[in-house]
Amino acid sequence: MQIIEPASQMQSLALSLRREGKIIGFVPTMGYLHEGHLSLMRIAREKCDMLVVSIFVNPTQFGPAEDFSQYPRGFERDSALCQRENVDIIFAPSAQEMYPDGYATYVEVTGKMTDVLCGYFRPGHFRGVATVVAKLFDIVQPHIAIFGQKDGQQLAVIRKMVADLNMPVEIIGAPTVREDDGLAMSSRNKYLTEEERKVAPAIYNSLLLASKMIEDGVRDTETIIAAMREFLDSFDMFRIQYIEIVDAETLECKRQIAGKVMIALAVFLGKTRLIDNIVIAL
Amino acid sequence: MQIIEPASQMQSLALSLRREGKIIGFVPTMGYLHEGHLSLMRIAREKCDMLVVSIFVNPTQFGPAEDFSQYPRGFERDSALCQRENVDIIFAPSAQEMYPDGYATYVEVTGKMTDVLCGYFRPGHFRGVATVVAKLFDIVQPHIAIFGQKDGQQLAVIRKMVADLNMPVEIIGAPTVREDDGLAMSSRNKYLTEEERKVAPAIYNSLLLASKMIEDGVRDTETIIAAMREFLDSFDMFRIQYIEIVDAETLECKRQIAGKVMIALAVFLGKTRLIDNIVIAL
Repeated sequence: MQIIEPASQMQSLALSLRREGKIIGFVPTMGYLHEGHLSLMRIAREKCDMLVVSIFVNPTQFGPAEDFSQYPRGFERDSALCQRENVDIIFAPSAQEMYPDGYATYVEVTGKMTDVLCGYFRPGHFRGVATVVAKLFDIVQPHIAIFGQKDGQQLAVIRKMVADLNMPVEIIGAPTVREDDGLAMSSRNKYLTEEERKVAPAIYNSLLLASKMIEDGVRDTETIIAAMREFLDSFDMFRIQYIEIVDAETLECKRQIAGKVMIALAVFLGKTRLIDNIVIAL
Repeated sequence: MQIIEPASQMQSLALSLRREGKIIGFVPTMGYLHEGHLSLMRIAREKCDMLVVSIFVNPTQFGPAEDFSQYPRGFERDSALCQRENVDIIFAPSAQEMYPDGYATYVEVTGKMTDVLCGYFRPGHFRGVATVVAKLFDIVQPHIAIFGQKDGQQLAVIRKMVADLNMPVEIIGAPTVREDDGLAMSSRNKYLTEEERKVAPAIYNSLLLASKMIEDGVRDTETIIAAMREFLDSFDMFRIQYIEIVDAETLECKRQIAGKVMIALAVFLGKTRLIDNIVIAL
């Protein structure tokens, strides 16, 4: 396994691998890897000759009041986990390498897709995500790239960017990996106190409640959202940022359940912001 | 020579050419080709195995009050000229192909580089340019791309975008091609009346005047700009939009001539907006 820091070195290698006809698979991460990340690597591993994982805590996707500096890091452990998953190359650039002084170029998916859900509460977040993913794709030159459904809006935004900008990359969405009690895996779970961790599975349970209501024939999204809200409020621990039901592809708000919808929410549990979602196709 | 309209077909071909080790050279144009464009093709031809020319009048770089619909077009003639220059592929997509319904993604070089010169007077113009060039690069997959120094700010903005987004494309700037009387070649010269065409070389002559002043030791840019303005005003035909002297790379305004500077201007001659520039390295 190679560990590469300079973008130019990663890019030259990627371009020469492509000339040799090698299929490059790519899993971009912010490190502090968990089973969710490893599942993405396993999916990519099956589909490519060369598996590249990037580890980069991207400053441009954090707001000024957000947790960039506290975001958990641990390169040694991450590197060992990648090795175990037969990763070929870790690309781990510095922030200075990715955003040198005078950096000025941004990629933005405009409009409603980034105005809703997390985009509404984290202005600039998806501009940072789109920009870093565009840069990483140019550097790593992947044929396929894997993103978790856990960050459902991110996945939709990246699919849109790739389609709009004609990027020659196949985007694969991978199922959310959960703890035994249903909590979606996230590097941020580490922030939770013991008490918070105990109640955290209620987030997923609120999604299961919604799923059950739909199964039982409820179609009005306001009714479903109200029930989820009531359920979460009953714990007296969650501050709900949003609960929304949107079209899974366009992210347009739905008043009625129809087609493929994403039920998504963001809550604060103490100081920690957690997100989760499920996709339901009727 | 192949003529390709669908982006997907162009991209598949480009990717397979790359796998075969072919060097792809690219000249993006808005068509209505003149000697300036042909000079770019000749430069590219020397440096590549496969020469791709795109012909696409890009709607996103025109403002609402600008000349998108009147912009001169002539595919038959353009195609014959490309054939004569040994172009291998013309990529000529439709606007619907490049910007399908619901299109939402833009690439933007932010900050002073796009706030000055033409960027100040054509808000959104360079966002449109950066976006279409990013798309064309993803579709055509060029190793090298040639742009004219005539659009000096465009060249600087594209260089910046390519560096910032780590695009694996070598950008080559090519000298401005001029008519015998000095007028920079432009598809928009066709808009000029006979009388306007006669006086038009004064634009270049104002740049030569500046060049002469610098040669004579003048370093204060305000003095130079005032002399250019006085010279152009003496014709009683030009409405000057801007005359600026900027750093040739960063486009920062210069108060004193030093290093490599670009002297650039935009003027209206009747209804036609013309630009020109020269670069001087001290």
